[in-house]
Amino acid sequence: MSTYADRLRALRDQLKHDRLDGFVVPLTDEHMSEYVGGYAQRLAWLTGFQGSAGTAVVLPAEAAIFTDGRYTLQVRQQVSGDDWEYVGIPATSVASWLGTHAPDGGRVGYDPWLHTRGWVEEARKALAEKGAELVAVTANPINSVWRDRPQPSDATLSVQADDVAGKGSAAKRAEIADWLHERKADAVVLSALDSIAWTFNIRGTDVAHTPVALAYAIVNADGTADLFVTPQKITDAVRQHLGNAIRIHDRAAFAPTLSTFRGKRVAADPGSAVSAIFDALDAGGAKILPLCDPVILAKALKNPAEVAGHKAAQARDGAALVRFLKWFEETAPQGGLTEMSAGDKLHAFREDTGLLKDLSFDTISATGPNGAIPHYKVTEELSLPIELGQLYLVNSGGQYADGTTDVTRVVPVGEPTPEMRDRFTRVLKGHIAIATAIFPDGTVGAQLDSFARRPLWDVGLDFGHGTGHGVGAFLSVHEGPQRIAQPYYPGGQALEPLRAGMFLSNEPGYYKAGSFGIRIENLVHIVPAEISGAEQAMLAFETLTFAPIEQKLIEASLLTEKERGWLNAYHAQVLRVVGPQLREDERQWLEEKCAAIG
Amino acid sequence: MSTYADRLRALRDQLKHDRLDGFVVPLTDEHMSEYVGGYAQRLAWLTGFQGSAGTAVVLPAEAAIFTDGRYTLQVRQQVSGDDWEYVGIPATSVASWLGTHAPDGGRVGYDPWLHTRGWVEEARKALAEKGAELVAVTANPINSVWRDRPQPSDATLSVQADDVAGKGSAAKRAEIADWLHERKADAVVLSALDSIAWTFNIRGTDVAHTPVALAYAIVNADGTADLFVTPQKITDAVRQHLGNAIRIHDRAAFAPTLSTFRGKRVAADPGSAVSAIFDALDAGGAKILPLCDPVILAKALKNPAEVAGHKAAQARDGAALVRFLKWFEETAPQGGLTEMSAGDKLHAFREDTGLLKDLSFDTISATGPNGAIPHYKVTEELSLPIELGQLYLVNSGGQYADGTTDVTRVVPVGEPTPEMRDRFTRVLKGHIAIATAIFPDGTVGAQLDSFARRPLWDVGLDFGHGTGHGVGAFLSVHEGPQRIAQPYYPGGQALEPLRAGMFLSNEPGYYKAGSFGIRIENLVHIVPAEISGAEQAMLAFETLTFAPIEQKLIEASLLTEKERGWLNAYHAQVLRVVGPQLREDERQWLEEKCAAIG
Repeated sequence: MSTYADRLRALRDQLKHDRLDGFVVPLTDEHMSEYVGGYAQRLAWLTGFQGSAGTAVVLPAEAAIFTDGRYTLQVRQQVSGDDWEYVGIPATSVASWLGTHAPDGGRVGYDPWLHTRGWVEEARKALAEKGAELVAVTANPINSVWRDRPQPSDATLSVQADDVAGKGSAAKRAEIADWLHERKADAVVLSALDSIAWTFNIRGTDVAHTPVALAYAIVNADGTADLFVTPQKITDAVRQHLGNAIRIHDRAAFAPTLSTFRGKRVAADPGSAVSAIFDALDAGGAKILPLCDPVILAKALKNPAEVAGHKAAQARDGAALVRFLKWFEETAPQGGLTEMSAGDKLHAFREDTGLLKDLSFDTISATGPNGAIPHYKVTEELSLPIELGQLYLVNSGGQYADGTTDVTRVVPVGEPTPEMRDRFTRVLKGHIAIATAIFPDGTVGAQLDSFARRPLWDVGLDFGHGTGHGVGAFLSVHEGPQRIAQPYYPGGQALEPLRAGMFLSNEPGYYKAGSFGIRIENLVHIVPAEISGAEQAMLAFETLTFAPIEQKLIEASLLTEKERGWLNAYHAQVLRVVGPQLREDERQWLEEKCAAIG
Repeated sequence: MSTYADRLRALRDQLKHDRLDGFVVPLTDEHMSEYVGGYAQRLAWLTGFQGSAGTAVVLPAEAAIFTDGRYTLQVRQQVSGDDWEYVGIPATSVASWLGTHAPDGGRVGYDPWLHTRGWVEEARKALAEKGAELVAVTANPINSVWRDRPQPSDATLSVQADDVAGKGSAAKRAEIADWLHERKADAVVLSALDSIAWTFNIRGTDVAHTPVALAYAIVNADGTADLFVTPQKITDAVRQHLGNAIRIHDRAAFAPTLSTFRGKRVAADPGSAVSAIFDALDAGGAKILPLCDPVILAKALKNPAEVAGHKAAQARDGAALVRFLKWFEETAPQGGLTEMSAGDKLHAFREDTGLLKDLSFDTISATGPNGAIPHYKVTEELSLPIELGQLYLVNSGGQYADGTTDVTRVVPVGEPTPEMRDRFTRVLKGHIAIATAIFPDGTVGAQLDSFARRPLWDVGLDFGHGTGHGVGAFLSVHEGPQRIAQPYYPGGQALEPLRAGMFLSNEPGYYKAGSFGIRIENLVHIVPAEISGAEQAMLAFETLTFAPIEQKLIEASLLTEKERGWLNAYHAQVLRVVGPQLREDERQWLEEKCAAIG
């Protein structure tokens, strides 16, 4: 097996051969996916970095890896400082670093299938100030030097049944066609994998944790569509499901097809479609309409079948989590558990449901100081033993055909300290403040975010992440356009109006570096609030996740009467929803956990 | 006296003479001021419209007046529908209306001293689609037909003493020079009148309610400055105060001077400097840096002398308001008062302080249904009698040499209804939620706004304005850059980080159309919050305004213990601050009003 130094050397040789003075290696795929298949893990292969976001730049004499604040420590553990310079974003952007480090007059390569046009323009401008050039490569040089690179998955597609999806593909495409007519557009390019899966009611297993298939699509104003996907992935059942209005092409036909729209008005999303798509449309003479992918909002507004499916998945997932929490409470204080073994046990309880398709993300199984790292990902190397006196945080979720879950619970191993109880109770107060919020239709997520923080602010504390993200229906565990976060949250999603039918997470936290972490996460569903005398349409949250919130960590005197009322009603509902699925001893345990507090 | 129809006809004749096919008449002055002098009241002269914001467009056969939602009713009362079409902004912008209504190939005039460059670009683009042209006039055609137009004020300037201002002009200019050095700039153009008044520690009386003088200024990187002001306005005392480092020029020399910066880097604010300033800099070959006026933030961070002065002004103003409230409570139920007479009485109590320079804005003295119009301005014609059973709302403020105040109180005339008490108490809960907020340094106003709304949201209500605006130090009663409002508030000011030293209003409200209005407004000062164990720098609000909050309108059972604690502590402080200034009978009255609730 080659060393990372070997790989860097091999890439530099390849760049010389390709007459390039540098190359940019992002962590993404041709669909700007959050999670990418093994074939697209070029950054990890080149540098050893295992985080979920980052970029590398290789120049003849320098190499730099760019990561955000979440990975400041991790990148130094995983990537050699002998070969790589560590650069923190957003303080220094890749483009601005290129502008100061690229060789005068040099040619820096990028793969146009892995960057947005916005990035390309920014980098091109920064390089131009040095007289250097940004050059689109036709073959990614990493592919040439990565000998044993995995092939993209050839797994077959599956059908998401209409009764589970709640709406057939033809009806969905008719709505997209209406959207095109309103904009006098002829077609829209879909490149986000979850948008394609939703539009055609298909699912796949090409990407870890997100049940999507590698594909591109074009939906036309007449409601027909072109789907670009490796032909071997299409079974007869899928072909029959798709029907005649959907023409199936090989994935390789996508770029040439984009060049056939001369004079047509074609919509594409600058936020999710890569630069190569715009380049191909441009080259073919299309009139490009840079518009937000119309599926994003449609997909976020869950229909009754999706809501019902999600509730069934939550009840099932809640029972698995309750079994795990009982097992953990009985086992952990005896010693011998590790983050890894605990996470595996929870996975096993979910597998026992018989319906688990996948985890919805890598389980965050974190004890003591690791709990204070909000995006911690346990590995064999990092896994800590779970010890008395610690807080244990588990953030996990399942992919089921009827729904995608995401839940976080924190439990003490032995007796918690007064500080842990104070912090936990403040996080709970923030959680309840979101859960009980009533707000005008059209309110944006940024207007709710501070409700989750105020109990921490009162004592000079805060948490360093957003309060809630959208969640898909057997799709991505993180989806837009809605979000509950500060108004300056990157990407502007916290400024999207909230609407009935959206799912969100409600997950305030608190992290004491080097010591413990707390997060209480349920999913919620936005519903109309019926209020007598209301002067405008109001919305509220219906909580969807059912698992006990550990009362040993609650300092009841810090709760108001209303907050105690919410907690007791929630626990009564946990018992109602989850109880009937349990064995008698489990049910008794849950009853104790759900006892009302005074 | 000419009729409005005569005036419109005269303007159309003038346009024909000037070979124009249209003209745009905004309500502003050469400084984009919020309040403008009589000489600049062209919109009111032409149309009769008395609101604080609007624009008219005159074409050969059409004329339109553009106002926002606040003035939907008022514009129809004041402006003739025979001559004018009413257009609502922002639904239809002036530019988009021009794009559909301007004559093909026509020439539409605008005064480049009365529009931002952003507006000019937008309008030019919209007209270009009709093949029409936007033409900068050298003389405003309204000036030619408005025979008895007032001259700009020739009032003399006054000096704002250094001990009241807290910092000398030389020190302020040195800070501006540092700012210029950081940006490698040679000079900055100041055109906002309050920025100029602050920089030079001068005040004027040229504009109603805002103690500023009509002037322009250029501050240079060496700390010297050029001040452009009508020479007759400069007394010897002012000349001596300004000193040698400030060169005084006639106002007429400003535009020619802007054309002398060939090759120099000159900063100007696209938000507050008019198009003519950019045109002159461009024509002279300057390299323009479009940057936010550096005085705006500096001016918002009040120094200790300004804070001390403000507190003295508040104590004095609070005593005048208390005297008024006592008089009102004793007089109003007997009948005979009107909105006008009550407002005049409050003005008289402020005059009695002997230190009032001006009101800080037109008093909103509104009873019953008029209280439900948040920006109501009482006039002889509109003034309603104050009657039993109504709520009376008074929003007013004073300009004193040591501070600018702004306060709103609501009192019942006779017995309030349970609905009035419920709504008032919810507004008070929102007010207290802001007053008691503790938040991380760098929090933006949009993150606090919902705290003020939640008690109303809970029952399906809201209010249709922001929660708080910045306030000047013997300057404008509305100033930026900070604001507490929804994140999508126009102008983006609610996304400005809040910092220690800023003043803000705290003024949630509730308006029941046709029935009553409620607003509870105090000014607050942002101060560091000392919290033991805090993990980051935190800020809090110190309340600056002292006047009783009417307990007859409070439903105590809706208040939490903490809220009752805040109210009692506030009232105790009102008594401490205002009490010593009162006659014995007034003091006794105030003591009753400030009694603790259980």
